[in-house]
Order: sequence, then structure tokens, then C-alpha cells
Amino acid sequence: MPTVSAPAPAAVTADQLLKHWQGHRRLTRRTIDAFPDDKLFTFSVGGMRPFGELALEMLTMAEPMLHGLVTGEWDLSMSRDVSPKAEILRRWDKGTAHINALWSQIPPGRFQETVTAFGRYKDLVCNLLLYVIDNEIHHRGQGYVYLRALGIEPPPFYERD
Amino acid sequence: MPTVSAPAPAAVTADQLLKHWQGHRRLTRRTIDAFPDDKLFTFSVGGMRPFGELALEMLTMAEPMLHGLVTGEWDLSMSRDVSPKAEILRRWDKGTAHINALWSQIPPGRFQETVTAFGRYKDLVCNLLLYVIDNEIHHRGQGYVYLRALGIEPPPFYERD
Repeated sequence: MPTVSAPAPAAVTADQLLKHWQGHRRLTRRTIDAFPDDKLFTFSVGGMRPFGELALEMLTMAEPMLHGLVTGEWDLSMSRDVSPKAEILRRWDKGTAHINALWSQIPPGRFQETVTAFGRYKDLVCNLLLYVIDNEIHHRGQGYVYLRALGIEPPPFYERD
Repeated sequence: MPTVSAPAPAAVTADQLLKHWQGHRRLTRRTIDAFPDDKLFTFSVGGMRPFGELALEMLTMAEPMLHGLVTGEWDLSMSRDVSPKAEILRRWDKGTAHINALWSQIPPGRFQETVTAFGRYKDLVCNLLLYVIDNEIHHRGQGYVYLRALGIEPPPFYERD
């Protein structure tokens, strides 16, 4: 009888999860870019936050989460200041590059460990990462409604390249 | 030198992916239920589809996708008829139970195989499943905007139980 059980087979591997996330990030970047600069932090529907604020939330969750999961250091200091679209996109691209660099430092078994992120959110590492991705999809979907309400066609949901 | 490489370690296991999806399904069910019956198929923002139509799209994607991945049979016949909320929720619950039953029939290596879903969408099984989940999150986020525009508080995004 084996004394060590085989690891559970992957539904999603680490490489696939990164590729999946970066595909979503490309689509979210196009969604940010679809907003007129003067609407990014001023327009919303139903009293909700404008899309620029949602994009800043994504920025302050994604890279800081991954940095924390890799280093154990949780940085809550990232700016949420209102900025021109070009600056938001510049920060987005910087985050994308950092996410790629950090991802390669995640030890293979790390995804199945339990961690308390930002000193507050205790869950499996895979669930913490999925939460960040889901939160991006959720808010981007709201951005699609804002764009339609502005008479602007959002980028195709299925295009991730 | 080993001649067979070890399988890639899981970022997300099959059990975790099902749990993740069913958590989202519980939240989407609460979102459907938050709509007044007379608004589900009539109200929208920016000329988009009402939330009832988006829920029907989710219904016709989720269980039929999983059924196809397990059996190789692709069923495109599921009804998209406008129905009272109670009927949509009844179909949702039936889908939830079928998804649990079908999931246990997925062979462990299946997630990494390439399949052409519905005779049209060729991708890795894990990506096809993630697409169905992401599409649900995306449209549910739009439903949140509709609810806010109706003056109704959506269910908390982070609650999945």
C-alpha cells in the first residue's frame, strides 16, 4: 500500500490559470480603453462606482495579491487616486508584467495551501486567485453596461488575445 | 532519465472547480430571485438583453456543455422560452443537480483534452468550462447594474454559500 497519496489531477494547471487570467486582463484593458477619458471617473448607472474606480480596485487587488502570495508581504498602500486613462493603462501594463514575473516564482504546491491574504481573507491560494479574477470579470461586466448606456460598443467578450 | 513526465501539478483540482462553480451558481440564483417577476424579461439598461434572457443563456450553456463533455452528445435544443421566475429557478435547481451528477463522471485526465463543443468551439476542456463560468459571472455583473437601476440591492458578491 502506498503511504503517500498521489496529488489530485489538475482541472486547471498553473500555466493554464495564468494564461486564463492574462486573457481576461487583455480584455479588461480594452474595456478601460473603450471609455472616453472624461467618462472614466464620472459616468455610472444606478448610483454605482464609475468604471475608473472599479479599474483601480482591480489594480489594487491583482498584483498586491500575487505579491503577497509569493513573498508573504501584504501591501495595502497602492494608490487609488483618480488618474487620466493613459496613467491607468500604464499601471495596468506594469501590473501585467509583474504578474508574469511573480507567477514563475509560485512553488507548485502553493496553490493548495491556506493563506490569510492582506491579514484578513483566509482561503486556499487557488480560491484567492480565482476571487481576484472573478472580481475583475464581475466589474468588467458592469463596465459593459456603462459603455452601452453611453452608446459605445464594448469589446467582444470572447476575444482574449 | 524518466521517459514519462509527471502530470503538471494542479492550480485548481476538479473538486475545487466544481465547488467554485456551484458557489457562483448559488449567487446567480440569488441574483435571478432578486428581480421582480415583471422586470425579469422586460427591464434592461442601454438596449441590452433583460436579465431573464441572460439567465436562459446561462441555462442553455452550463448543463448542455457538461453533458457534452461527459457524453460527447451536444444538445442545442434546450428551451429559451420566456418563463415566470419560479420556472427559471426550477430549471436552475435541476441544472445544479445534474451538474453535480455529471461532474463525478468526468475522467481525471479529461480536463486537459481538446474538444470541439457544440460542433463549434474547439478548446481544452478546462477552458470550455471556465468560459461557461466566466460568462455567468460577466452577465450576472450586468444584472447587478439592472438591479441597482431598479433601486434593488444585489446579493453580496463575496457570499457563495
